[in-house]
Amino acid sequence: MPSDIEIARAATLKPISQVAERLGIPDDALHNYGKHIAKIDHAYIKALESKPEGKLILVTAISPTPAGEGKTTTTVGLGDALNRIGKKTVMCLREPSLGPCFGMKGGAAGGGKSQVVPMEQINLHFTGDFHAITAAHSLAAALIDNHIYWANELNIDVRRIFWRRVVDMNDRALRAINQSLGGVANGFPREDGFDITVASEVMAVFCLARDLDDLEERLGRIVIAETRDRKLVTLKDVKATGAMTVLLKDALQPNLVQTLEGNPALIHGGPFANIAHGCNSVIATRAGLKLGDYVVTEAGFGADLGAEKFLDIKCRQAGLKPSAVVIVATVRALKMHGGVNKKDLGSENIEALERGFANLARHVSNVRGFGLPVVVGVNHFHADTDAEHDRLKALCREKLDVEAITCKHWAEGGAGAEALAQAVVKLSEGEPGAITYTYEIETKLTDKIKTIATKLYGAADIQIESKAATKLVAFEKEGYGHLPVCMAKTQYSFSTDPALMGAPSGHIIGVRDVRLSAGAGFVVVICGEIMTMPGLPRVPASDTIRLDASGQIEGLF
Amino acid sequence: MPSDIEIARAATLKPISQVAERLGIPDDALHNYGKHIAKIDHAYIKALESKPEGKLILVTAISPTPAGEGKTTTTVGLGDALNRIGKKTVMCLREPSLGPCFGMKGGAAGGGKSQVVPMEQINLHFTGDFHAITAAHSLAAALIDNHIYWANELNIDVRRIFWRRVVDMNDRALRAINQSLGGVANGFPREDGFDITVASEVMAVFCLARDLDDLEERLGRIVIAETRDRKLVTLKDVKATGAMTVLLKDALQPNLVQTLEGNPALIHGGPFANIAHGCNSVIATRAGLKLGDYVVTEAGFGADLGAEKFLDIKCRQAGLKPSAVVIVATVRALKMHGGVNKKDLGSENIEALERGFANLARHVSNVRGFGLPVVVGVNHFHADTDAEHDRLKALCREKLDVEAITCKHWAEGGAGAEALAQAVVKLSEGEPGAITYTYEIETKLTDKIKTIATKLYGAADIQIESKAATKLVAFEKEGYGHLPVCMAKTQYSFSTDPALMGAPSGHIIGVRDVRLSAGAGFVVVICGEIMTMPGLPRVPASDTIRLDASGQIEGLF
Repeated sequence: MPSDIEIARAATLKPISQVAERLGIPDDALHNYGKHIAKIDHAYIKALESKPEGKLILVTAISPTPAGEGKTTTTVGLGDALNRIGKKTVMCLREPSLGPCFGMKGGAAGGGKSQVVPMEQINLHFTGDFHAITAAHSLAAALIDNHIYWANELNIDVRRIFWRRVVDMNDRALRAINQSLGGVANGFPREDGFDITVASEVMAVFCLARDLDDLEERLGRIVIAETRDRKLVTLKDVKATGAMTVLLKDALQPNLVQTLEGNPALIHGGPFANIAHGCNSVIATRAGLKLGDYVVTEAGFGADLGAEKFLDIKCRQAGLKPSAVVIVATVRALKMHGGVNKKDLGSENIEALERGFANLARHVSNVRGFGLPVVVGVNHFHADTDAEHDRLKALCREKLDVEAITCKHWAEGGAGAEALAQAVVKLSEGEPGAITYTYEIETKLTDKIKTIATKLYGAADIQIESKAATKLVAFEKEGYGHLPVCMAKTQYSFSTDPALMGAPSGHIIGVRDVRLSAGAGFVVVICGEIMTMPGLPRVPASDTIRLDASGQIEGLF
Repeated sequence: MPSDIEIARAATLKPISQVAERLGIPDDALHNYGKHIAKIDHAYIKALESKPEGKLILVTAISPTPAGEGKTTTTVGLGDALNRIGKKTVMCLREPSLGPCFGMKGGAAGGGKSQVVPMEQINLHFTGDFHAITAAHSLAAALIDNHIYWANELNIDVRRIFWRRVVDMNDRALRAINQSLGGVANGFPREDGFDITVASEVMAVFCLARDLDDLEERLGRIVIAETRDRKLVTLKDVKATGAMTVLLKDALQPNLVQTLEGNPALIHGGPFANIAHGCNSVIATRAGLKLGDYVVTEAGFGADLGAEKFLDIKCRQAGLKPSAVVIVATVRALKMHGGVNKKDLGSENIEALERGFANLARHVSNVRGFGLPVVVGVNHFHADTDAEHDRLKALCREKLDVEAITCKHWAEGGAGAEALAQAVVKLSEGEPGAITYTYEIETKLTDKIKTIATKLYGAADIQIESKAATKLVAFEKEGYGHLPVCMAKTQYSFSTDPALMGAPSGHIIGVRDVRLSAGAGFVVVICGEIMTMPGLPRVPASDTIRLDASGQIEGLF
């Protein structure tokens, strides 16, 4: 099998207007970025409001392992398969972040024969959305310090500024800085630091906003500091939101690309899946539902984090109702959950598979708890044995009464996921019911955290550190108690210990800190160490990224 | 007269493919960014190599004053006028920087009826070139600190790192920082700071590179630090150049837009005019010369800085030979050079004009010193009197034997600059001669500085501070003595005192510092305080920038 990049380069892409045409999008609603990428105009999207909506299919996964699950690949494969069996389907995906491309090798546009293209542009600058978000965030930062520099009429406490700076690069040196040094002309010295752009609250707001007006209002609600007398200061207070919205205007239009099989995909927004909700933009998802009979979308990390936030935060805020959920699993990953080392994954091991199945079982049961129909997509890897697949299917049927379907879209494209597509169509017949959310939105913040921990993570209890507890009380008092919570914990385990694979129970979820994301509309709950600015490895991928003699990019994927 | 933005919005733009077609550029050589902006493909530009070249016309100006001269406006007006009189003409301009838009009101795409459009996109993200430059610069910064973090095999001295960071925002708080704080995981604490993106050496390199190969080679030559044993470390040493070139690949393709009259303009690159050379990219200028019979281009600041660097640095490096030079002057600005306050510019004042004429005379004489034919374009303002224009023309004729032509392109578009266009055509007949550079490239760096100061600035001598003198000796020793010098001094005066208008002479040019820009290929000579990171004013323009109810941008221009 050729490499991902070889497959992508060998593909003949359709002009993007042709991809748009199949969705009924006229040429004058497109803003082209080259021949194979287009943004869909705000006005056209607004005019779709009155159209009926297609069915929303969520692709989520078991707890990730180093073996790889292939969630994006399955999303693309399933979308291609649905199109093959005659269902007009739009895929909705997140935009990859630029910085990490130069650290570890690998892009984020699917793989094998299930990819979105043009993959190089998608993985690099794409249509500049993340650059626009970085610029908007940076403008806000500059305005805050400028306000303090001139007269500080708002009486901002320089020790209590929550708005950090961002850059779309893995740059550990900027995690903690002292700034405004060098004398009177440079302002009042204070501590600060940079996060990677995808961790910006602007990104979360961008992905949850319904339209430009909602974007500006949400930006205005973002709490950036406290005053010397402990009042909250917002981005609206420093008059940043009008200019930020101008900077984000074009970016907020969703990006249309195609899969290797020429089917439409909207790739738009990409918030962190820990300190934010980890889904593509509401605008793209809603546009997809108006344009297609089906939308296939994915959520970050495993179902305990990704699907929970997709449902309890995104769907609740945007009024979305999924018709079915695909949980992606692999034999390899389940064997790792059952205790096998990565290097031993090449050999058949039914017992380990049976042990690791507990992880899948917990996720299936959790998603069903939301009142949603589930199918398991077993992403086939070449070293898997038939016996393993058969055993996994039997376990799913016998223990969970859920269908598990082997998918070979990586090797075969959409044709390899047709059985999954048929199952999805069957599951999603009829009108989708209301979601049974994990918690009622009006319960207290601590109760929400505890409910998620005990109901979904199998925990016995939560333990909130005193600093976090004090802040939660303050958030309730300040009127933010009605917000959903956004859990930031390791994606590798139902517990807060990444090494605890499978389906642990009876553990304690420790809450180290909480943060208010008032613009996005959630309270971030930090369990364990969460990294918001990655570093580069000793030998970064960038060492070998270059243009070859023919001007093609080498080493990026 | 309606405002610039009203004029720009009222214009009916041609599809960009139609603008390209007039230059013979086929559709498949275009990468569209929406309907009115396109990048021209690298391969197509390469294929132009063998075509004959058009004539190159430089637009420069007297020393800038707060009255405004209108250099960009004149460049556009002259280009439109040349097209009107049947000369296929391409305008080559610099891209505006994003950050300053939010500080002082005002864009940088011409004005009145001499504008390039779409002005909002051009002034905001445009095609993302500056974002790509910021990303490439940031990657290099991250790689340098990453190298030090892991093992520092190159033995980089953290006290002697010259590579600062950049952001495209006016953010004084980042001018001087301490970074890598917070413990072992964040690296080795050191001093650092941010410049605005246009001050990055990546920008200068981008604008002087002939093609992608040359870009990568120049990036590799950039000196970023010294080792503990005082050896120079380059970007090539930290393996940054391949990935940086990949980030800059698309950006290096010049951007095609149009004037209000539908004529082609290439807007590409925009380095600082003080610590860099202040001209659009060599690639755009060379492409323009292959595509048009005439190229009209501008250089930053007054002719003492802009034209000098255009000729001694850009033309020398790229082998360009201008056919004629337009020096833009206004009656208002010359009256300020003659001692009138800005508030009194509304009244006729022939005597002040006569005194201020000395500034223009020095610039005309300087440009003629390069062996180039000169015409003075007098940009007409509504409060100017006929007597003033007549007197200025007479002075030019009698004292300088140069033609001065009143231009009304701001109010009338290209029609208002036809006389200037006719004069330019006449001046540029025949083959352009060789440029008489200000200095021989093989003379010593200090001699180059002294030659510029005495020959062009009217100075009696230069005075090099000891720190700068030591560095100059080191540069000569390290093999950089053959580079041209890039003067960074105030644009408001021939001296280093911005208040000294007119044509001072006998002054001393103090050299405070020098910097090596080995990738760009020049030594920066810093005379006085040079700001590489602007701040925001007390009431920044961003306070009133927003989208109006119809989604149009308000307050930006």
